Amino acid sequence: MQHTISFTQHDKPTPIVAQVPTNTLLADAAHIAGIDIGQPCGGQGRCGRCAVQVTGGTVRRRSTLRLSPADVEQGYALACQTVVEGDVSIFVPPQEKIERRLTTDRVVAEVTVPEGYEYLQDQTVRRIHLELTPPSMDDQTDDWSRLQIAFRQQQNMERVTCSVDLLRKMGQVLRDGDWNVTAVVDVSNVIQSGESNHTIQLIDLQPGLVDEYSPLWGIAIDIGTTTVSLWLVDLVTGRVRAQVAEYNGQIARGEDVISRIIYASKNGGGQELRQRVLDTINSLLETACKRVNAKAGDVVKATIAGNSTMMHLLLGIPAENIRLSPFITAVNHPPILTARAVGLNTNPEASVDCLPGVASYVGADITAGVLSSGVDVADDVTLFLDVGTNGETVLGNRDWLVTCACSAGPAFEGAGVVNGMRATQGAIEEVWINSDTFEPTYRVIGGGKPKGICGSGLIALLSEAFITGILDKAGNVNLMANSSRVREGAHGGEYVVAWGTESESGEDIVLSRVDVDNLLRAKAAIYAGFTVLAETVGILLESVSKVLVGGSFGKYINVEKAVQIGLLPDMDWSRFEFLGNTSVKGAYYTLLDWRKRERITEIAKRMTYIELSADNSFYEAFTSALFLPHTDLSKFPSVAEVLENKQADTEKSTHVDK
Amino acid sequence: MQHTISFTQHDKPTPIVAQVPTNTLLADAAHIAGIDIGQPCGGQGRCGRCAVQVTGGTVRRRSTLRLSPADVEQGYALACQTVVEGDVSIFVPPQEKIERRLTTDRVVAEVTVPEGYEYLQDQTVRRIHLELTPPSMDDQTDDWSRLQIAFRQQQNMERVTCSVDLLRKMGQVLRDGDWNVTAVVDVSNVIQSGESNHTIQLIDLQPGLVDEYSPLWGIAIDIGTTTVSLWLVDLVTGRVRAQVAEYNGQIARGEDVISRIIYASKNGGGQELRQRVLDTINSLLETACKRVNAKAGDVVKATIAGNSTMMHLLLGIPAENIRLSPFITAVNHPPILTARAVGLNTNPEASVDCLPGVASYVGADITAGVLSSGVDVADDVTLFLDVGTNGETVLGNRDWLVTCACSAGPAFEGAGVVNGMRATQGAIEEVWINSDTFEPTYRVIGGGKPKGICGSGLIALLSEAFITGILDKAGNVNLMANSSRVREGAHGGEYVVAWGTESESGEDIVLSRVDVDNLLRAKAAIYAGFTVLAETVGILLESVSKVLVGGSFGKYINVEKAVQIGLLPDMDWSRFEFLGNTSVKGAYYTLLDWRKRERITEIAKRMTYIELSADNSFYEAFTSALFLPHTDLSKFPSVAEVLENKQADTEKSTHVDK
Repeated sequence: MQHTISFTQHDKPTPIVAQVPTNTLLADAAHIAGIDIGQPCGGQGRCGRCAVQVTGGTVRRRSTLRLSPADVEQGYALACQTVVEGDVSIFVPPQEKIERRLTTDRVVAEVTVPEGYEYLQDQTVRRIHLELTPPSMDDQTDDWSRLQIAFRQQQNMERVTCSVDLLRKMGQVLRDGDWNVTAVVDVSNVIQSGESNHTIQLIDLQPGLVDEYSPLWGIAIDIGTTTVSLWLVDLVTGRVRAQVAEYNGQIARGEDVISRIIYASKNGGGQELRQRVLDTINSLLETACKRVNAKAGDVVKATIAGNSTMMHLLLGIPAENIRLSPFITAVNHPPILTARAVGLNTNPEASVDCLPGVASYVGADITAGVLSSGVDVADDVTLFLDVGTNGETVLGNRDWLVTCACSAGPAFEGAGVVNGMRATQGAIEEVWINSDTFEPTYRVIGGGKPKGICGSGLIALLSEAFITGILDKAGNVNLMANSSRVREGAHGGEYVVAWGTESESGEDIVLSRVDVDNLLRAKAAIYAGFTVLAETVGILLESVSKVLVGGSFGKYINVEKAVQIGLLPDMDWSRFEFLGNTSVKGAYYTLLDWRKRERITEIAKRMTYIELSADNSFYEAFTSALFLPHTDLSKFPSVAEVLENKQADTEKSTHVDK
Repeated sequence: MQHTISFTQHDKPTPIVAQVPTNTLLADAAHIAGIDIGQPCGGQGRCGRCAVQVTGGTVRRRSTLRLSPADVEQGYALACQTVVEGDVSIFVPPQEKIERRLTTDRVVAEVTVPEGYEYLQDQTVRRIHLELTPPSMDDQTDDWSRLQIAFRQQQNMERVTCSVDLLRKMGQVLRDGDWNVTAVVDVSNVIQSGESNHTIQLIDLQPGLVDEYSPLWGIAIDIGTTTVSLWLVDLVTGRVRAQVAEYNGQIARGEDVISRIIYASKNGGGQELRQRVLDTINSLLETACKRVNAKAGDVVKATIAGNSTMMHLLLGIPAENIRLSPFITAVNHPPILTARAVGLNTNPEASVDCLPGVASYVGADITAGVLSSGVDVADDVTLFLDVGTNGETVLGNRDWLVTCACSAGPAFEGAGVVNGMRATQGAIEEVWINSDTFEPTYRVIGGGKPKGICGSGLIALLSEAFITGILDKAGNVNLMANSSRVREGAHGGEYVVAWGTESESGEDIVLSRVDVDNLLRAKAAIYAGFTVLAETVGILLESVSKVLVGGSFGKYINVEKAVQIGLLPDMDWSRFEFLGNTSVKGAYYTLLDWRKRERITEIAKRMTYIELSADNSFYEAFTSALFLPHTDLSKFPSVAEVLENKQADTEKSTHVDK
């Protein structure tokens, strides 16, 4: 039976109506009506953030978790857990919006072309000129054979093949160029096998002889659970010509990989998530191309890094078994695909290389990170941390590599935090708090009014609030502190970093109790990950020669503060190196050099995955780390010292005041 | 500016209305309104068969060829040549319909599995069983690697690759089969190179261990300009399990290749023609599969023969240069494609092998014909004729092969003839005429009432009418003949083969003057083709040891009558062999055996194409052959003898009557 569902949105006067059968979820009805209701937990009914108000008609609530009896009394219902049983009127309150603005990253990563890059030696994609003899009544050779003969005679390329789409345009291109053409070919098979009888794929054909020094475009992509980064690269010079990043459009359907997998397993969910991340990538591609006056359709090669779930969702491959014991991915080493098959708006013939991963929770973002950070060729034992939504850790050197993963959540990427944001224009990136007045000083990316707080700002804020006593070691806000900036907020105690008078939106920018919890869980998961991994293989953290930290905010982290909150181990700062987004960098290296591409396959094969979920010690280490900096302060001697000095200062100053 | 065009069809009371801008062709407006107006000449304004009646409003006629001033007076206009200039009302008279009924061919071709066919040696597609170790916490190998390991360990297959679509279903198939699966792979690359490090393509994956003797389906297709044939083959046994044929759906947009090319070059025309032939093939596929209870989606391999224009149109490749000097195809040797790329409703991963052609007017139907008839391995000089819409001729033996082509038109396939039809149930396939009474006797395929006349029936009818004096040597109908069956019809003189009282439709079945002209042109083109070809290479027709005749009606031709009309040369009948559809048979051979596939490539490379259009002697030979049997009766001594005897008989009987 069909029912009429009428949606009134808080910001639009006219209701939108959809016809749906009995037992349709409100979320699905809204989708049909073209109204987007965010489902950060992936529609599991766990986060409560898809609540809408039923203003008329009959619905059935399967779950009211996160709703109070009073909420239900007022008609509130979870869109992902409530089905219609008749004609219904719905009021859709304001939805949390994830800022969607395409901006340059805080700082474009400093990246230099790998030393000795030689396009003609290292690159699998080649641009070549071919001069054909025009046909005549005496030489009626067909266009495609004529082109193949030119490949053979002028380039020693024996077995060039192409798609039917290229055959469709070939005749016109040959004639437009008056039988002079520029071809782009992928010679991977020949290079890798070392044998000339393997097939060479024709990727593009342009009329005339295109300047051989003009750019030949490729892209390196990192699909993070929270953030997608894309670098546009000139394959001839090897130079990165544009860098862009944006929140992953899937975030509105789940903030972590588990929520996404659950959402994807619903009817049409997988397709929706695939489209969302494709939209993000294609929009980044457009922005990057616009910046250097390139055409997206001229991009002929792509390499993609990302965790295993992101890779499955991008390719539309069911990811369900990733979250179910024994945690099996469908594919760790995807075959090379075409942009047409994947859905990228590059040249449809472009080869798309989804880099290899290791396991369900250690994906191609980590193998790419190991490649670009060089852990696999290090002489001494090195610890590699990827501080993202999934906290992966790698420990090893040229002889051995072990790895583990834990779910940190997106807090350090500014998501799932009330005033969190990505590290772009307007983000508070560094904070200092005066320990007497509790007044903050902060630095905003690009100057100007603050819009929110990014990862490095959150670490700094957490650390300063702890050291100054605004937060206690359990993360509780000290409401007794003598400052109007400390107050009871909607989500418990909170600290005001910027008043509405100074912020971009006109509203206060705060750190709430809920935010603190999210940040504590994130840092505890990462800390527990690497400590348990080191224990498992019998390595003392002290004996690690280098700690390499990847992650999008990586380079801008303040070591002292990261140690003070217990995210990083308390050791000599000289041993830390902050590398930024090591995943996209690894994708960039493999985009340029086929030997690096072979090395990343080796890395994926060499790494031994340690399953933490099977291990009680991880849970213990995690709960012990849910404090500032840790339950066991003796693990953080430098922090203990600061706190002691602080205590002494406070006593002194108290003494003086008296 | 938009105009309202109202179409009233002869058989539908309610007009259909379309909105179109000024200068829209009536044919295009009809298309928008969803009304199909046939354009047998491809919209060139040459055939006059798309005429409609303008009953109101203003139109502009670009051409009125084939319309009399009286026609124009009454509002008639060619839909393909007339544009709207305001609101217009159109009456659409009855359109000629090409009978579209899926039937078994007259006789399923007798075809035996090639001697010594060994599936495991000859076939490029293999079905194999794989038994995988289930995953566990101790073995978290991803699904695809697990499958690849099984290929390596159990089948020595090193480099198996697959599409993203197969990756999408792989996880479920492995689990549904409890880790036992049946895979279908294409091992062409390994077989052809003889090296195991070439890629093997995974085509299908089914849960469980499918019975290895159950059929593995392939299809062999011949796309004729007029008729499409499809054979469904079990690749395991090599047996042909179903044979179906149907008119090519493109026929409504041009009866010969030139008309099709012109139609295809119009906006959207190429796409429409591609869809029309795909519809024909996919409908044949469905019928064939239904007949043996197979699923179209289980077909894993296809080989396709057809002339070069048909191949281009199937693949959506512009064919324009085929008809423009110097007559160049875009591709003679298409790469192997997937059914997904081509648009066949088989398994989307199925490999589709479009067989190689020689030139614009000698395509893969001829190379396939040479292969299946064995001209390329013959000891003695052999003449091969393909009697289809295009009359191609091959002359040669194991040492040399020459070929030429000429446009015969579709008359022998029953198209372009008033009461013509394909050789299916209800077709008159043989005719005898009493030379005294002019009363005919005929045989109908399948018995029952006649619906029309097929190719072999038309040849017999033409011959009998000529020998009995109903037609003179120029093809004129002798209206003085003493019979009610000879009369003046709508298209000049005509002969009634079957009265309405005895026909299926209730209307007279006739041979008209226009039909005779079409048949004369068809036979003259074929005769001129092989005679000029033989002359060009300096071979006397008499020295040809065998004449092999291909074409869909081939086996049912009456040699005597074909010689009497001057279609075949007048030589000892024992030298003729009628082979039926040699093109689909060649496609079938290459479907089964990769060595045959290599041989057909060799054939395409070996054949020397002789361009007749550059040669005046062809035109002379053609005009000389536009008579029954020929201008030069001395070339047909056996016919001369029959005519002499006949003459003597008539004189005798005349004498007796007196």
